[in-house]
Amino acid sequence: MTRIERVAVVGLGLMGGSLARALAARDVHVLGYDSMPDSLDAAEGEGIVHERLPATLTGIEGADVVVFALPVDATMSALTRVAPLLERTRLIMDVASTKRTIVDTAEKAGLGARYVGAHPLTGSHRSGWRASRATLFDDARVFLCPTRSTSPESLALAEWFWRGLRTGVEVLDAATHDEQMAWRSHLPQVVSTALALVLQHAGIHRSALGPGGRDMTRLAGGSPDLWVSIVEDNGAALDAALHELDEELRRFRAALSAHDRGATTEFFSSGRDWFDGAPLEPLTARAPGA
Amino acid sequence: MTRIERVAVVGLGLMGGSLARALAARDVHVLGYDSMPDSLDAAEGEGIVHERLPATLTGIEGADVVVFALPVDATMSALTRVAPLLERTRLIMDVASTKRTIVDTAEKAGLGARYVGAHPLTGSHRSGWRASRATLFDDARVFLCPTRSTSPESLALAEWFWRGLRTGVEVLDAATHDEQMAWRSHLPQVVSTALALVLQHAGIHRSALGPGGRDMTRLAGGSPDLWVSIVEDNGAALDAALHELDEELRRFRAALSAHDRGATTEFFSSGRDWFDGAPLEPLTARAPGA
Repeated sequence: MTRIERVAVVGLGLMGGSLARALAARDVHVLGYDSMPDSLDAAEGEGIVHERLPATLTGIEGADVVVFALPVDATMSALTRVAPLLERTRLIMDVASTKRTIVDTAEKAGLGARYVGAHPLTGSHRSGWRASRATLFDDARVFLCPTRSTSPESLALAEWFWRGLRTGVEVLDAATHDEQMAWRSHLPQVVSTALALVLQHAGIHRSALGPGGRDMTRLAGGSPDLWVSIVEDNGAALDAALHELDEELRRFRAALSAHDRGATTEFFSSGRDWFDGAPLEPLTARAPGA
Repeated sequence: MTRIERVAVVGLGLMGGSLARALAARDVHVLGYDSMPDSLDAAEGEGIVHERLPATLTGIEGADVVVFALPVDATMSALTRVAPLLERTRLIMDVASTKRTIVDTAEKAGLGARYVGAHPLTGSHRSGWRASRATLFDDARVFLCPTRSTSPESLALAEWFWRGLRTGVEVLDAATHDEQMAWRSHLPQVVSTALALVLQHAGIHRSALGPGGRDMTRLAGGSPDLWVSIVEDNGAALDAALHELDEELRRFRAALSAHDRGATTEFFSSGRDWFDGAPLEPLTARAPGA
């Protein structure tokens, strides 16, 4: 595998900033851009970004690998706009939380063969450059979603890139990824925020919660911009998951008002069984042809 | 304040076991009972329980302070049954998560003047003696709920007892406590379990979740017995809280299906505002006459 010398990171928030830090720590030459001058100044000042890019991203042509680390909608508009500058880039990736429409957009922009959508299943309720850290990806799981035309070489390079950052890599069809994330990630996020709003209306501050309540509302601190773009992009699958939650809660409330102790016992016991359960088979599948 | 020499702890699970450990570490003579002989053996073997009580609790008369550390319903039946042995006990308490029906039961059992309901706002999804630890109460908040006839001396002794365990103490009317806990504790628990069940039905194991999803489902690992007795005892208040959550989720789903980006932005932004918000005034009130 040829060494990757130069990587451009577009967006230096929690994900992009952490990626830039992890790359710089591995002696990669990092080209960076962020729409907030303060973040870019800080990244350059700390020696993480070695070469700053302008808003036009002119100069990005010099990177072997380009990674977009932006909200879902911003990723799509950026990669469409910048595509003409990426004709010789070996590998183009993004790290947004939904993948189907992004890899379709990359395909349409003519980048399909060299594009791999990536989704590191890590994060924080904190956001922005100041929340970034070089260890964010350590031991995280990263989903890689090829386009319809991703070349085997590009996919292999993407796997090598993420393994080099100490992540576990799973290759997954983009539509399957998004469907899975509706349950595994987007549902918990929406529930956490809804719980936060209920507590807000009840006049209860987070500091009044015990450790369990604080865990349950930590995700509510996440970036609104990021989450709006995620739920917009994956609305149908998320709605199906929310429907199932609604059904569970409806059944529980019926049991509660009927004083049906058997049913409430079943509710909590099943939840604990799941919590205690043995690991299932991985839910992922290799991408067709991968 | 007279020194407390001997404390009986009835129930040596997470709460009672941790209490026994914290007391033993402070050179208190601990009398202990648990319905599981293994737990009682272990507690005695580790030198935490100095004197084991039989199932009848004969011998509990020798304790200055008695603490019931049982599920809500078991607390009520135990204190009714044991009341004749507690005629000279200085202070009787429990540590269950709901307080209104328990303090009423204590009053009816003739223990009102010397009874104080306690609820340490701490815990773990783990349960049983093996989950107990001497530091469980360090810096935790403890709610103290007097009966209608708790004497000022008993309440003062209870406050002194819990402060000695490094907890922050708030005195609170039992009905207000239970109403508050429906929102602050019981709602998050039910939501966590409901989320666990949805994921179970979707075939998703907890190990497939990211850090946020794992936080959101940690409470689902809690003891079913404990939670059934809590929700049974506080059903009406909990149902009201669940109704509000249902409304929030319904509004979110309507915004999602209408692609109303303004409304989804408002949803996530309000949640983050609450998360970031300045501490409110304490929500507690001094008990009448306290």
